[in-house]
Amino acid sequence: MTETFDFDRYDRIRPIRWTGDALELLDQRKLPFEVEYVRCPTSESVAEAIGALTVRGAPAIGIAAAWGLVLAARNVEADDGVEAAALLAPAIAHLNAARPTAVNLAWALARMRRVLLAASSDWRDVLEREARLISEEDLAANRRMGALGAALIEPGSNVLTHCNTGSLATAGFGTALGVIRAGVAQGRINEVFAGETRPWLQGARLTVWELQQDGIAPTLIADAAASHLMKSGKVQWVVVGADRICANGDTANKIGTYQLAIAARHHGVKFMVAAPASTVDMETPSGDSIHIEERDPGELFGIGSVRTAAMEIGAWNPVFDVTPHDLIDAIVTERGIIEHPDESAMRAAFGG
Amino acid sequence: MTETFDFDRYDRIRPIRWTGDALELLDQRKLPFEVEYVRCPTSESVAEAIGALTVRGAPAIGIAAAWGLVLAARNVEADDGVEAAALLAPAIAHLNAARPTAVNLAWALARMRRVLLAASSDWRDVLEREARLISEEDLAANRRMGALGAALIEPGSNVLTHCNTGSLATAGFGTALGVIRAGVAQGRINEVFAGETRPWLQGARLTVWELQQDGIAPTLIADAAASHLMKSGKVQWVVVGADRICANGDTANKIGTYQLAIAARHHGVKFMVAAPASTVDMETPSGDSIHIEERDPGELFGIGSVRTAAMEIGAWNPVFDVTPHDLIDAIVTERGIIEHPDESAMRAAFGG
Repeated sequence: MTETFDFDRYDRIRPIRWTGDALELLDQRKLPFEVEYVRCPTSESVAEAIGALTVRGAPAIGIAAAWGLVLAARNVEADDGVEAAALLAPAIAHLNAARPTAVNLAWALARMRRVLLAASSDWRDVLEREARLISEEDLAANRRMGALGAALIEPGSNVLTHCNTGSLATAGFGTALGVIRAGVAQGRINEVFAGETRPWLQGARLTVWELQQDGIAPTLIADAAASHLMKSGKVQWVVVGADRICANGDTANKIGTYQLAIAARHHGVKFMVAAPASTVDMETPSGDSIHIEERDPGELFGIGSVRTAAMEIGAWNPVFDVTPHDLIDAIVTERGIIEHPDESAMRAAFGG
Repeated sequence: MTETFDFDRYDRIRPIRWTGDALELLDQRKLPFEVEYVRCPTSESVAEAIGALTVRGAPAIGIAAAWGLVLAARNVEADDGVEAAALLAPAIAHLNAARPTAVNLAWALARMRRVLLAASSDWRDVLEREARLISEEDLAANRRMGALGAALIEPGSNVLTHCNTGSLATAGFGTALGVIRAGVAQGRINEVFAGETRPWLQGARLTVWELQQDGIAPTLIADAAASHLMKSGKVQWVVVGADRICANGDTANKIGTYQLAIAARHHGVKFMVAAPASTVDMETPSGDSIHIEERDPGELFGIGSVRTAAMEIGAWNPVFDVTPHDLIDAIVTERGIIEHPDESAMRAAFGG
């Protein structure tokens, strides 16, 4: 077993491709049945693709928006960055509004604007370089996270994951799925189980497909079968991503994550959260302060356009849930590992 | 609040109707979108309907098979029950083979054959009377179970259920859903939550529809949202059925039940199993002895004929799981309540 490995062998999917004169986005609405890149030659078409969920996953959205600004710059004549920033303000605002809840979107555009304001006559090159850098840094952070997280997993283990946290959601490699990729590449992980993740089925539609492309054959399970799987002794780790990590280590993630954490603790299965440091929010003291978004109950009434539930019924469709820090064995970011996270461990790692 | 109530008001659905010359079965494959009874004028058509899942639910299958034998008797001339039993042996075998795993099917046919063998020249009437009796006894047992179980639920409670254990699965009223019907009728239960129950969606398709017909408006949730629901303080009881109850109180039921039991205990939510006494199997010492059936992985690849998962993938599709007795607060049968079930409590109630 080696701690280094051929990253590319286990990571062939890229949801975002820059061609030099356009951005190509892998259409995630059509996966897994059609692998089709949508060509976006303008800033407007990038914003539209983000809004339409052609591209999804917070890091991936930020990267797409950065490239959108590079495209917008082609329609602007300016002598320096300050002048360009003024002329590009409408394009930035338009991109920012494409998915207002995605933190990484605003973060990437603010970073692009910052380097633009400091640029002289080569401001176009500066923007393009920064967009490439944002993408490369995301990929590097994921690979680092993957190596750190995989090192926690004992050789011969099986893992269970939830939702999609992979190459499809990032510049590449993924967060929790990056840990799993690294673990498979290092021979630590034998079998990967993926929960289907109702109601959107990101596990069944995206995670399973993505791992397949890299030669990893995952096993799909119903979300409700996870505890039976653990009781059967078939998994040693649950590895999931995060949408927000609070100052005490409480973690918000896709609905169903909390249930997995309770079941994992009940069975002595370890529970890992892998997410970029940008997900850590030291301003939010605990999970109690997180507002849990509830989406359209209609998402539970069918699959795509196919109605499966009775008509005119009520449903409750929370999108996220909160896993309290005491059910988490390790939080992994590109900066390092926090075992048994709590407020003092989080402050030691992230300040604040 | 009253302990007695108008049963019929909260129980309008009957999956099985005897017309005097045919059996009519509510086609559960078409629910909730079409309410259509399939007419079965012969024993062969009843067997075919059982095999095709037109009727489902162990008690309902047993009752349908009993009526199937009544129909078979119309093609037979015999002077007494013994002669009739010999002539009806092929029909009994054919009905028995329609769903070989359903215990109630064999049980109902054995009971019919027993009374037939003891009958004289009025053997046709004896068979018809026994079929009606099996159905009436099932309904009465469910109403008794409902009243017993509901009495455990404190007024003002909300409940969560899983799969379909209602009128649709029985002669009427249901088992776990009968407890919920009684609890609503008595004003003890305010709100009913139903898990959608992947992969077959019995919760979304059947339970929600069935309760709607009786004026109870349930709230559908994703199976993975149950723990978040409990943490929100929105349910006080989980009420589920059982496919088999072991000598120590361990209970096999639809996949996902075990996960609900773990989560319920974690949150201090009570957990009730309601099932007819015929479900109790004192010959099986514990859940460890139960073989968990695994079904076609293809059930996880889509909804009906609509493919939703990636192609050529692996999946693990256990149909049942086992909830250990120490996670169960009460087992309710028509014979009474067993709180904190264990082997001695079970033997006291059921002998063996």
